[in-house]
Amino acid sequence: MIVVVCLNPALDVTHQLDAVGWGEVNRPRAVHARPGGKGLNVARTLHALGADVLVLGLAGGITGAGVEAALRELGVPTAFTPVTGETRRTFSIVDDSRVTAFHEAGPEVGAAEFAEFCTDYQKAAAEAQAVVLSGSLPPGLPAGTYATLIQTAGIPVVLDTHGEALRRGAAAGPAVVKPNLAELAALAGRPLTARRGAELAAVAAGELGRAGAVVVTLGPQGLLAATGDGRWRVRMPAAVAGNATGAGDAVTAALAHGIVAGRPWHERLRHAVALGAATAAAPVAGEFRPQDYLDALRAVMVEEVR
Amino acid sequence: MIVVVCLNPALDVTHQLDAVGWGEVNRPRAVHARPGGKGLNVARTLHALGADVLVLGLAGGITGAGVEAALRELGVPTAFTPVTGETRRTFSIVDDSRVTAFHEAGPEVGAAEFAEFCTDYQKAAAEAQAVVLSGSLPPGLPAGTYATLIQTAGIPVVLDTHGEALRRGAAAGPAVVKPNLAELAALAGRPLTARRGAELAAVAAGELGRAGAVVVTLGPQGLLAATGDGRWRVRMPAAVAGNATGAGDAVTAALAHGIVAGRPWHERLRHAVALGAATAAAPVAGEFRPQDYLDALRAVMVEEVR
Repeated sequence: MIVVVCLNPALDVTHQLDAVGWGEVNRPRAVHARPGGKGLNVARTLHALGADVLVLGLAGGITGAGVEAALRELGVPTAFTPVTGETRRTFSIVDDSRVTAFHEAGPEVGAAEFAEFCTDYQKAAAEAQAVVLSGSLPPGLPAGTYATLIQTAGIPVVLDTHGEALRRGAAAGPAVVKPNLAELAALAGRPLTARRGAELAAVAAGELGRAGAVVVTLGPQGLLAATGDGRWRVRMPAAVAGNATGAGDAVTAALAHGIVAGRPWHERLRHAVALGAATAAAPVAGEFRPQDYLDALRAVMVEEVR
Repeated sequence: MIVVVCLNPALDVTHQLDAVGWGEVNRPRAVHARPGGKGLNVARTLHALGADVLVLGLAGGITGAGVEAALRELGVPTAFTPVTGETRRTFSIVDDSRVTAFHEAGPEVGAAEFAEFCTDYQKAAAEAQAVVLSGSLPPGLPAGTYATLIQTAGIPVVLDTHGEALRRGAAAGPAVVKPNLAELAALAGRPLTARRGAELAAVAAGELGRAGAVVVTLGPQGLLAATGDGRWRVRMPAAVAGNATGAGDAVTAALAHGIVAGRPWHERLRHAVALGAATAAAPVAGEFRPQDYLDALRAVMVEEVR
């Protein structure tokens, strides 16, 4: 079983309109709503891969109940720890010319609530083969939260977050950290480019070297990995455009899946880039066409970086 | 038991911001969400009055599950008929200068789903003393829907809706219809004023005379009632400002409550205006302070209109 931790899940609501009357009552022409947040994308991808997955995290209020119901409907098992605050929504208003988004912050999490989550987490980890920690922390939880969860897991952890939570999480020794290029550049405090593989690998090792491996996603240019078994640059033959958020979450899912399947590193990375490419091509994060995945697997290019 | 039918319930979400950046990601300073729709306000008021109430209606998707969960938390019993569509949200952006609202239409209801609701409705009505039909119809249901529900109830029905659904509903002979002044004026096809009680009562009787009684709410000026027992003008000594929607729904609740309690008409109306005034003074529709209600009951003025 793979435990996916989503401490700040969301319900993503999109309203499409031809034009918006500000200060008026508008009636959207189309409405979409789905469970959001990076962890939930990872969980949906793992479920689609046939992995035994369990989503843990914090959920509360009307939206928390709604997110749980929607995941149940998608067949993704959940065991959220209840909180008194309200799980966040994101509202995106899409008109002819632009997208205006309203992002709620998520519930303020109390110490007792987080302690209860930790109990649930340790019970689940005791029966799991790997853990994924993904996304930002909700208000009220300290930047060292992921580090604590990594230290108490007792099994391999894949960490996908940013900023201080990433820096402190990496120092706690997870199996894999998966920043994207912008997140690594923010940690390094200087701009980075996807082209210089050896330099990038050195920066990754320097900033996040206490992690077992660092996988830097490069958007359409694939990824770069610095692992104990070697360094690789992995990409599709042609740049893949599409949903970058969804693609990054698919890479995280594939890395956890590769650990549990016992694949060697270069095979994990091949699957990760193929799944990312197939997911980028799908309209909705967390979804992919199996045929796209299989086609991409045959096309992926894996090269060692020295 | 009083059955409250809410065919198109909603979740009302409000985001408060100092200023909105159109085309950007905004982070609201405060977020409120609550079950909305007129029927749910009526049900919450009846529950607060200590009445035995059951909410029926159509609910679906993430939002439907959320509305049910929130009502459960408020202690209001529900038995919604499930639909495959998604229950609607209303989303209001409140900034310094204005309110911009986005109202979803609600789920398209299929014929089989509505037939299932009718079975649930007839079962519940067989054990109830009164029915409240409140609010607009969801997409896909014909304007005669409330008329059908009135004909099959077998017990007194209070109807609060507008337009063709009101006209056809009234013709089916409910115990009470409760338009507001604007809704009655729309039916009559000409402007009406709250001042001319006798004229208003005549218009109400003319437009909606197949109903057992017509109660026209006049906002801060109370109400006018044309019943089989007489015609009354009922109001507070001073005009009451505040939440007009909530006040109208409180009047509907009090009228149903008065039927079940076996109160004579002038007493029903006294309670209705007092409860409306107490609810208008509360910040949230469906809520009132008991002391405000008792104070208002002592102050209400009831006069016969000839």
